[in-house]
Amino acid sequence: MYTLRDWMIVDDGRDGQSALENGNRLLIGNGYMAKRGTVEEADASYMPAIILSGVYDKYGDLWREPVNAPDPLFTILSVDCVPLTLTSERLATHEQSLDFRYGVYSRNTTWNVKDANLTISTERFISMDDVHLLCMKYTVSTDSDCLSLSIEICINTDIHDLNGPHLGNFQFEVKGQTHTLVCETLEKKIPIAIANEIVERKSLSYLIEENRSLYFFNMDGSNSVELFVFGAIWTGLDVDDPLVNVKKSVSRAKEVGWDRLLAAHKAKWDENWRAGDVVIKGDDYAQRVLRYSLYHMHIIVPRYKRICGSLSIPARGLSGQTYKGAVFWDTEMFIAPYFLVTEPELAAQFIRYRIETLPGARRKAAEYGFRGAFFAWESQETGDDACTDFGVTDVFTGRPVRTYFRDKQIHISADIVFAIKRYVDATCDFVILKEGGLELILEVARFYLSHIYYSPDRKRYESLDVVGPDEYHERVNNNAFTNRMILMVFETAEAFLNLLKEGDEAFIEKLLAKLDFSEDISLMRDVIPHFYVPQPNGQGIIEQFDGYFRLEDCSIDTVRSRLKDPKEYWGGGNGVASTTRIIKQADVVTMLALFGVDYSIPIKEANLAFYEPRTEHGSSLSACMYALLACEVGGSDWAYPFFIRSAEIDITGKSKHFAGLVYIGGTHPAANGGAWLTAVHGFCGFSLKNNKIHVTPRLPSHWEKITFRAALPDGLHEVTVTRDGWNEEII
Amino acid sequence: MYTLRDWMIVDDGRDGQSALENGNRLLIGNGYMAKRGTVEEADASYMPAIILSGVYDKYGDLWREPVNAPDPLFTILSVDCVPLTLTSERLATHEQSLDFRYGVYSRNTTWNVKDANLTISTERFISMDDVHLLCMKYTVSTDSDCLSLSIEICINTDIHDLNGPHLGNFQFEVKGQTHTLVCETLEKKIPIAIANEIVERKSLSYLIEENRSLYFFNMDGSNSVELFVFGAIWTGLDVDDPLVNVKKSVSRAKEVGWDRLLAAHKAKWDENWRAGDVVIKGDDYAQRVLRYSLYHMHIIVPRYKRICGSLSIPARGLSGQTYKGAVFWDTEMFIAPYFLVTEPELAAQFIRYRIETLPGARRKAAEYGFRGAFFAWESQETGDDACTDFGVTDVFTGRPVRTYFRDKQIHISADIVFAIKRYVDATCDFVILKEGGLELILEVARFYLSHIYYSPDRKRYESLDVVGPDEYHERVNNNAFTNRMILMVFETAEAFLNLLKEGDEAFIEKLLAKLDFSEDISLMRDVIPHFYVPQPNGQGIIEQFDGYFRLEDCSIDTVRSRLKDPKEYWGGGNGVASTTRIIKQADVVTMLALFGVDYSIPIKEANLAFYEPRTEHGSSLSACMYALLACEVGGSDWAYPFFIRSAEIDITGKSKHFAGLVYIGGTHPAANGGAWLTAVHGFCGFSLKNNKIHVTPRLPSHWEKITFRAALPDGLHEVTVTRDGWNEEII
Repeated sequence: MYTLRDWMIVDDGRDGQSALENGNRLLIGNGYMAKRGTVEEADASYMPAIILSGVYDKYGDLWREPVNAPDPLFTILSVDCVPLTLTSERLATHEQSLDFRYGVYSRNTTWNVKDANLTISTERFISMDDVHLLCMKYTVSTDSDCLSLSIEICINTDIHDLNGPHLGNFQFEVKGQTHTLVCETLEKKIPIAIANEIVERKSLSYLIEENRSLYFFNMDGSNSVELFVFGAIWTGLDVDDPLVNVKKSVSRAKEVGWDRLLAAHKAKWDENWRAGDVVIKGDDYAQRVLRYSLYHMHIIVPRYKRICGSLSIPARGLSGQTYKGAVFWDTEMFIAPYFLVTEPELAAQFIRYRIETLPGARRKAAEYGFRGAFFAWESQETGDDACTDFGVTDVFTGRPVRTYFRDKQIHISADIVFAIKRYVDATCDFVILKEGGLELILEVARFYLSHIYYSPDRKRYESLDVVGPDEYHERVNNNAFTNRMILMVFETAEAFLNLLKEGDEAFIEKLLAKLDFSEDISLMRDVIPHFYVPQPNGQGIIEQFDGYFRLEDCSIDTVRSRLKDPKEYWGGGNGVASTTRIIKQADVVTMLALFGVDYSIPIKEANLAFYEPRTEHGSSLSACMYALLACEVGGSDWAYPFFIRSAEIDITGKSKHFAGLVYIGGTHPAANGGAWLTAVHGFCGFSLKNNKIHVTPRLPSHWEKITFRAALPDGLHEVTVTRDGWNEEII
Repeated sequence: MYTLRDWMIVDDGRDGQSALENGNRLLIGNGYMAKRGTVEEADASYMPAIILSGVYDKYGDLWREPVNAPDPLFTILSVDCVPLTLTSERLATHEQSLDFRYGVYSRNTTWNVKDANLTISTERFISMDDVHLLCMKYTVSTDSDCLSLSIEICINTDIHDLNGPHLGNFQFEVKGQTHTLVCETLEKKIPIAIANEIVERKSLSYLIEENRSLYFFNMDGSNSVELFVFGAIWTGLDVDDPLVNVKKSVSRAKEVGWDRLLAAHKAKWDENWRAGDVVIKGDDYAQRVLRYSLYHMHIIVPRYKRICGSLSIPARGLSGQTYKGAVFWDTEMFIAPYFLVTEPELAAQFIRYRIETLPGARRKAAEYGFRGAFFAWESQETGDDACTDFGVTDVFTGRPVRTYFRDKQIHISADIVFAIKRYVDATCDFVILKEGGLELILEVARFYLSHIYYSPDRKRYESLDVVGPDEYHERVNNNAFTNRMILMVFETAEAFLNLLKEGDEAFIEKLLAKLDFSEDISLMRDVIPHFYVPQPNGQGIIEQFDGYFRLEDCSIDTVRSRLKDPKEYWGGGNGVASTTRIIKQADVVTMLALFGVDYSIPIKEANLAFYEPRTEHGSSLSACMYALLACEVGGSDWAYPFFIRSAEIDITGKSKHFAGLVYIGGTHPAANGGAWLTAVHGFCGFSLKNNKIHVTPRLPSHWEKITFRAALPDGLHEVTVTRDGWNEEII
């Protein structure tokens, strides 16, 4: 069971399920890499991992996924050559914890060995100061005589992959207390260099055997053994010669030493929190879970600059290989808003990642017979789509199930445009539009122009055969959310074209000529007034898609009761939800939350009341959208449990771990971002336009005060919101 | 095992599977009703049935289906009060047979009883002369003493229904040797009267017990016992007082007697065969199976006139309740051509059935937000759609599977227009156009006008989200067959409008005004030149629908090997064929067969070669389309096995009996019609335009000669086709 304290989460679970959950719960990282919260001696069955941001590999016909690096901190303690593990019968107590203010993982485990209590205490961090560095302090102590102990340390290549292996051509070297390993990915032959450097507090005898260092010692109950392991990882995507760099890294680390490395690391974290922290008065639990959510965004956001292109944030962060380490709409819609306010250059970087992957989006559009840019549903480094046509495994037949995430969830392109518009509206940074942003927007507009159809009967343009955010209902026509987003793309393209034209007509002319866009502009102008966006019916309800109201109207419990297997996928061809009105996640409600100014309070209320009981919240992206919309209609107290659900998802571990037979566990950065969205945009009614802050306080009734910061061109603004008012000061 | 002779099929099977197969194989009927080929004493487990054409009922929420009538011929023989049945251990020999020249069913069964061989021999027919009449001769004989025998005769109400029961309010009456029963359907309270009249050759002692007549006798090996049972059925859809009529029927039958009733019945059959027979020289097997196929069409085609509307032919004929006794496209596309040539007034009746059910088609279009006439995929007496959204049961979960036959298989409306056009082109009967035919065509055109979309990108009209003949691939765009059929509807509407306008401008003006059709005419004229019909690619192959070529290209065996359960449905959401190029039945090939003049020989050859290995022929409608097209490209010998497959389907019983867990067995009138189509249109290159016969001989190489007849206004034409030539004479 876990315990949550201020800036600290502790868990004493030891079984396989706990190991899996703690792997996510106690994750540490720095945006270059992250290491799962597993114990040092964990074998592959515990799913330990060090995930490298933006390094992907494909093995055979299996799914392309991020590379899991060999672990330079692997350490195992044995007594009489028998390793001590969490499954040992001699295990007495065990505890793992995470200091999520500073990203420091600790563990304390005691075994009863020959009348002595033998304890391992470790601390580790992945440096925020030097992104290539992993540091560990490893302490062994006893309360009595304990003989014949040994510690084995190596760069562990016994790697758990979902769709691996991904590395080959291993070349080990052990010199003194320095281990190095160079290997390369299978597909693109990207070299990866790993090193570690072992430093003992007091010298121990050791030998080297098969690339492992083995330390031998006895203990008498009065002393303890303390080791430091400094690991480092560099890849061929960072630098031309990763081996040279990795050696330098560990040698420098040894020189600098644990204390100063830790201090530098903490100083960087203090910097992160200076802009990024949110302080809630009147609700300790909310304070803790929100900070924990923010922590999870900070350990995965790529702040360092790579030589080969911008990076963004995968949907499961760096917590593993789930969802192929791919970037989904999560970043644009749920995560970017936080960084847009606290570190806008990171929000710009997410946009640059999309601009740089525009060629992949063009390839995907062409593949499906469209023009323009159809962005990947699951985007990796090239922008080609990692999403497969078969995303789920049928639990009854073991056969892959055809899903339509890749070819039909077309709102992804519009989501990116939405994020660019939001960024530009907030920051007035038109440079990004000129540096590819507008080209991207026009190419997305062109994609939708080639996708839509005109109904001569209904005298309007429509969007057909799509999958909306509610993925349980596939291949629907006129999904309200998608249609509204498409219209927004056309409107945004038109608006930015006009805006930039005023300032730099030559640029626009050149761009339009380059893209051969003049015919598309005429079409777009014809489409805008005739494009269909589903409107509220007599009861104020907006139909999620054509024919949704024809579906069976039953409860979530009824649908759940039809499951024959708990791991069954609810959607798609034969899913229990597909033929009912039960939806996976906020869909119409997301539209209302994003386009709030277009809709009245009663419409928002009616749709909240209609859709919420029909929403399974099978996605971690769902709760915050309900919360955001509820805040707009004065329902902050109603929204509060949804806020909590978003903020605590990676603490409780209560989320879907399987879609059919496919493992989908990991951390939930979008929910983390959604928690911040709800706290700041929702409860504070915050918005940012033209570098101006707007606030409409609507705190939950038990909150006294909330303070957050916004990094604007004139400095860091601290915003304090109470139930009755708010103020803003530059600090 | 069955044996096929000239005009005769004999089977000695006794087990449950044989009983089920013989129920179809030995079916007798007259278009008013049909009786399955089960033995007289069969209980409900043998699925005996007397299906009444055009009488439907719905029980609770179950599927609406044809009514299975109580059996007035039910008879059972007992020894010492123990019934003799096919499962009795004392059974010695058993044989059932059908004379398919005259629709006479026989059975001969012998049991070893107390050292005697006791034999039941029966004959029965359903009168072609008086459609309400069922007649049976029942003979018991022995070769030795056999005491304590009894025969029970009753109107049996122990009825097997797929989705019943359907009858209630039973009122029995037994007077002397006349039984009567009046009951009514549950939904519409249609009265159904059944009677029988028992006549013994020599008088036997009997008593009446609970509506059953029980005859008692002993036998000594030298005599036999012979009974006649004359049954009759009338319903409230035939006449106002069915009870009076049913009593009259059996009393008249008793008066006329077996021999004269049989003679009158046979005389009507001789009339049927006069126009309807086809004589093949040089291939006895083909001759037999083709005649057997023609027989099956004659026993189900409704020649009598009902007081309440025209009737058509259900997809499983009158062989049971499978497919809800509903009329599919089978009638128009596969069965009508035979009657168009041999009894054109019946082909006109099928059209009138559709004209009369136009209100149902209009309701269905409106239900889906379309205008015009969207005909039922499964049409019963009102034209409302009996097809459900859940047509298949998943074998793994037992849950219903959403299928799209009802809402997406829109080609049905065009199929009806195609049949009208073919009828008018052949007969020049423009009266039917004025009597509702043209209104139907315009309403169908209007339906498609409200369904199609214009792609501004591709500058063409398209048909989206349909199911083509290949039902395994659901919700496809631009199905070549469907698109070509839709274009044909527009062209036919335009052509008939112009044609009738010349003769009767006032009629056209009135009709257009009544339908408020002028705007639709403008739209239709804009659509015709811009409507997209998929064209052959570089290899001459026409893609079945958008994206078909993207599907996995594997063999039928590969797809079959992925089945986890033999009853699995191959199509739909999770079917093994859905994500591959394996198709259920002729689709592009059907289009090429119907629109032969539009395509060159090499295109036809290329598509035959491409699609045939990818066709499962999971529908009985498939083989004949391949055969027809093959004949056009000089492949009559290649076509021959497909012809045989079509013609023998109801003899071999080799067809799909399940779709998921839903029973779909029964007879296959469309395959029967397809056999005739192949023999006459295919092998003879026959066509009929403006009452003129055209023939292009292309017989299979082992056929010497084929003779068939066509009923034209100037008389019955006999056409004789040899390998080298043909002639035609009026007889």
